[in-house]
Amino acid sequence: MNEENINAQRLAALRTEMRKAGVDFYMIPTTDFHDSEYSADYFKEREFFCGFSGTNGTLVVSAAGRDGRVQDGAGLWTDGRYWIQAEGEMAGAGVALFKMGEPGVPDVLSYLRDTMPENTTLGFDGRCVSRQDGAKLESMLAAKQIRLSTEKDLGNAVWKDRPPLPCHKIYLLTDRQAGAGFAEKIGELRAKMQQAGAKYYVSSKLDDLMWLTNMRGDDVECCPVALSYGFFSDTEQHFFVQEAELTAKVRSYCLKRGIALHPYDGFLPFLAGYDYKGSVMYDPSSVSYGICLAMQEGMKKAAGKAADGITMRLVEADSPIELMKAVKNPVEQKNIREIYKEDSAVVCRFLYWISQEADIAELTELDAAKKIDAMRAEISDFIELSFPTIAATGPNAAMMHYEPAEGACAKLKRKGMLLVDSGGTYLRGTTDVTRTTALGPVTAEMKKAYTLTAAGNLALLNAVWMQGCTGRNLDILAREPLWNIGSDYKCGTGHGIGYVLNVHEGPQNIRWRNSKGADETAIVPGMIVSDEPGVYKDGRFGIRIETILMAREKGRTSDGTFLCFDPLTFAPLDRDLLDPRYLNDTELKWLNEYHRAVYENVSALVEPAVRKWLKAQCAPIHA
Amino acid sequence: MNEENINAQRLAALRTEMRKAGVDFYMIPTTDFHDSEYSADYFKEREFFCGFSGTNGTLVVSAAGRDGRVQDGAGLWTDGRYWIQAEGEMAGAGVALFKMGEPGVPDVLSYLRDTMPENTTLGFDGRCVSRQDGAKLESMLAAKQIRLSTEKDLGNAVWKDRPPLPCHKIYLLTDRQAGAGFAEKIGELRAKMQQAGAKYYVSSKLDDLMWLTNMRGDDVECCPVALSYGFFSDTEQHFFVQEAELTAKVRSYCLKRGIALHPYDGFLPFLAGYDYKGSVMYDPSSVSYGICLAMQEGMKKAAGKAADGITMRLVEADSPIELMKAVKNPVEQKNIREIYKEDSAVVCRFLYWISQEADIAELTELDAAKKIDAMRAEISDFIELSFPTIAATGPNAAMMHYEPAEGACAKLKRKGMLLVDSGGTYLRGTTDVTRTTALGPVTAEMKKAYTLTAAGNLALLNAVWMQGCTGRNLDILAREPLWNIGSDYKCGTGHGIGYVLNVHEGPQNIRWRNSKGADETAIVPGMIVSDEPGVYKDGRFGIRIETILMAREKGRTSDGTFLCFDPLTFAPLDRDLLDPRYLNDTELKWLNEYHRAVYENVSALVEPAVRKWLKAQCAPIHA
Repeated sequence: MNEENINAQRLAALRTEMRKAGVDFYMIPTTDFHDSEYSADYFKEREFFCGFSGTNGTLVVSAAGRDGRVQDGAGLWTDGRYWIQAEGEMAGAGVALFKMGEPGVPDVLSYLRDTMPENTTLGFDGRCVSRQDGAKLESMLAAKQIRLSTEKDLGNAVWKDRPPLPCHKIYLLTDRQAGAGFAEKIGELRAKMQQAGAKYYVSSKLDDLMWLTNMRGDDVECCPVALSYGFFSDTEQHFFVQEAELTAKVRSYCLKRGIALHPYDGFLPFLAGYDYKGSVMYDPSSVSYGICLAMQEGMKKAAGKAADGITMRLVEADSPIELMKAVKNPVEQKNIREIYKEDSAVVCRFLYWISQEADIAELTELDAAKKIDAMRAEISDFIELSFPTIAATGPNAAMMHYEPAEGACAKLKRKGMLLVDSGGTYLRGTTDVTRTTALGPVTAEMKKAYTLTAAGNLALLNAVWMQGCTGRNLDILAREPLWNIGSDYKCGTGHGIGYVLNVHEGPQNIRWRNSKGADETAIVPGMIVSDEPGVYKDGRFGIRIETILMAREKGRTSDGTFLCFDPLTFAPLDRDLLDPRYLNDTELKWLNEYHRAVYENVSALVEPAVRKWLKAQCAPIHA
Repeated sequence: MNEENINAQRLAALRTEMRKAGVDFYMIPTTDFHDSEYSADYFKEREFFCGFSGTNGTLVVSAAGRDGRVQDGAGLWTDGRYWIQAEGEMAGAGVALFKMGEPGVPDVLSYLRDTMPENTTLGFDGRCVSRQDGAKLESMLAAKQIRLSTEKDLGNAVWKDRPPLPCHKIYLLTDRQAGAGFAEKIGELRAKMQQAGAKYYVSSKLDDLMWLTNMRGDDVECCPVALSYGFFSDTEQHFFVQEAELTAKVRSYCLKRGIALHPYDGFLPFLAGYDYKGSVMYDPSSVSYGICLAMQEGMKKAAGKAADGITMRLVEADSPIELMKAVKNPVEQKNIREIYKEDSAVVCRFLYWISQEADIAELTELDAAKKIDAMRAEISDFIELSFPTIAATGPNAAMMHYEPAEGACAKLKRKGMLLVDSGGTYLRGTTDVTRTTALGPVTAEMKKAYTLTAAGNLALLNAVWMQGCTGRNLDILAREPLWNIGSDYKCGTGHGIGYVLNVHEGPQNIRWRNSKGADETAIVPGMIVSDEPGVYKDGRFGIRIETILMAREKGRTSDGTFLCFDPLTFAPLDRDLLDPRYLNDTELKWLNEYHRAVYENVSALVEPAVRKWLKAQCAPIHA
């Protein structure tokens, strides 16, 4: 440990706070109070203390002094994507790296269970740990009489210049834009609450809350959501948000709809003090441990004075809002279809530009990303990117989560491939699309891999299935052409997408294993999924083709109801990367049908030069 | 109710027994003590009392007198296959028909819960109800203080001329025939018991017990199993069987292996009196409620005198033997491959005969079934049919469980199709195969349906998948060509098959939903599954193509281990029913490859005339 290292100093200060609070081990995860995909700077406490800036990691700090059996120490858990980066960023901080997933490396929970002496105290901010993990810790550590201290963010006292909580003005979708008003949506929620035997529903899931209220915000990077909480009874609706986010318009909107407004930081005290008269339903996969403790406290108090015969318990259930939100209503569907065409036109324009640009070798991956970002921003109701654009060449494309950065990205060459995964959030929907394109000469291996990726992508796009099928049933259609040559992508095939909301949403997804959503959620008409098979060759190249699909009813027969997909994305697959020898006649037909649809849907939206190029790209391909 | 009706009289006598025993409602299910697929006549108590002879049904009888709130009554629950038959067979018996699955019709358990008055008694033979159903009844009825009386088969006193329990001599597979001896198998079982923290394993699953001990019997129709129970500790092995089944050879075999022999009906008393010194593992899906009660009684007694620190509980788990048995060992695999070729030769011989037989119009479905049965019996080590042969034409083929019977089956015509689903049990394995063949002119609709069934069958046969996939992942491959035209078969695509054992075994299967086996059991090398898509058009025609497949490793790449199937069945698909317009070039290639393999594997095993016919059947088909 280097005493002059800034992180080492910060950790020392944290240990002082820990001793003051009677905490022997302190855990700092990565997430915010809402388990958001991207955390604001305010929440980067783990990075503040150890220096590691990756998007996945948990820091555990121990402080000697209070208990003779505990030594000063610190460890960081992160996955294989970040090991090299973490070692660099944490050098000198005195933090051991725990390589998650390596054989013999314990996970955080097992480590705490095995390392913490009996009768000591583990601290963490209960708002940053899910109910599920908190409960797991509770039961794992109970056997050793280890106490949990979860009410304080101990790092806060050390972090003097902590950035403020994100706080941006909330705006509204009109009922016409949203396709359904708050009254209708809350009515549907209440029906589900009643079915579950609950009088209350508690939510901290930001996209659920935005969808339900038709509000939108700007507090999480790339997600148009406001930091907020919701508490809904069979007659009341309470919404918790930072006061500065509220415009007069939003206040008036809430007043008219009987939505009581409360300060954001008043949520836990509200839950702990509420006079419950029935059961509370919540989703333990998104609600934090801290929220649950507050509800338990409140219900205990309420139980003391409640009338006889009132059942009062916590009802764990999947978020009912999630499924309501996933099935797009007719207005959402119409707007989404429209905006995907405009967004697809941007992709076509970009692919045309890449194919024509003379000075390609002067550009970097970041330049390419900026180019498509700028094109997207020209669409009239563009709000923001739906995620940071991935533009990756060569070995960078083999890293699924690569993001080009200033001074840390590759130059383009007229050789190999460029993978661009990008999307926007607009007032008419949220998009996501990946195309991989040849920049110049490509190898036969690349063409074979690309063509079989295309075959899988087209097979899922053309799937016809019986009502009731889930993503687990469908996944193999996209993988089979690749599995046939011993190739597999180590991620799901598809995810749901929000409406003017998060680019990743549930509950459905397309995966072949280890996913509750794929196991249990039938893909039903109005649901959106991505279709993104790929080939990733470590250190060499990466291919992904991602088309967004919307499910609809295909027809009914005496054997039942059958469903199919419509593509929402209309951007050509790359002819220079397609080798028809690897496609059977059905796959070739699918390819040509898709290309015809691409031209039909996008040609009118692009300039004559792009249109001409597009026509050539979409011309039929024969065996 | 007709007082002269024999069933009405029997029910009256049963009610007298019920009153004597203090039982208000009495339930008689269909199954034997081992949840066997076929029940022996001894177990046909439900039929004895109500007249209904179908293979699925539960009779509930109520007796007035003991409790003023209960009336004399009786109801039978059965599924849609049997409604007409049940109404006919039960006419005059005073038994109401409950049509299972009809909207508004309660299932048996809900009916009992809703109908039985508080504080009454439900009786059933605990040996004929699974632990799962028994436990469900227990908890559903507890709220109404309804007692369960499960120790007596009340019908026995009424049924004077009851047939005896099946009782046939047990025979042995040599270790060479079985590929592994008892010592090796029980060692593997004990390792699984230890992993589960159990000192004992209790089984009533006949095919599990046969596989484990390398014994075979003849007590269940079409299943070479002996009525038996097993109790295995970490050092002991107890086998319960009717004394008359034991030959000197089997006694000596058991003596040498330390298998203690006990009378069959001594099992429950043994469990209730055993001095347990640890936990007992059992599979609640196969073990009966009666067995569980006996174990609980025994453990209660043992707990009183056990030393401190001994954990003694019932550990519910999937049968570990089932998975061991499902993965065939190298000897089993070799024998199975061999016997399937010989069995396939029988199918080819039969198909040839059907195509040539001049007097087809003189024959019935039953004649056709007898013909293939006789051909099968000529194989040297034939033991018995593995299930009653299905030979069905026209609308009969649309009924999945149709079985032709003397005087109740259709005549063959030189028109339409014949579906034959048949199999044998031999000393080298158990077979199952379905082919549908044209008897004469067929419609375009039939050809389309047959060709798409073939496409699905070939797609599953040619599947390549990542290690870890289950039948739920694979199922869609067989269904997709049919789903594409809005057609679906209302059954699973595939089931496991035993080795000189039951034609249906788990845990794996190929289904798209509602199946624990398909959800959780990966298809691994050495497993066998059937591949049997079909088209069933109510009242018109039925098509099924069933080829048996064995999984094996295809290869390993940097992305993982990939598996594939080998066909075990080699019998041609019907050229007269194949319309190549409905096959893409991949499917045509699969078809021709399969036909080449059929000819290669079977041609040497059949007579010259059949060989010549087979060659023509297997000639390449072009688009």
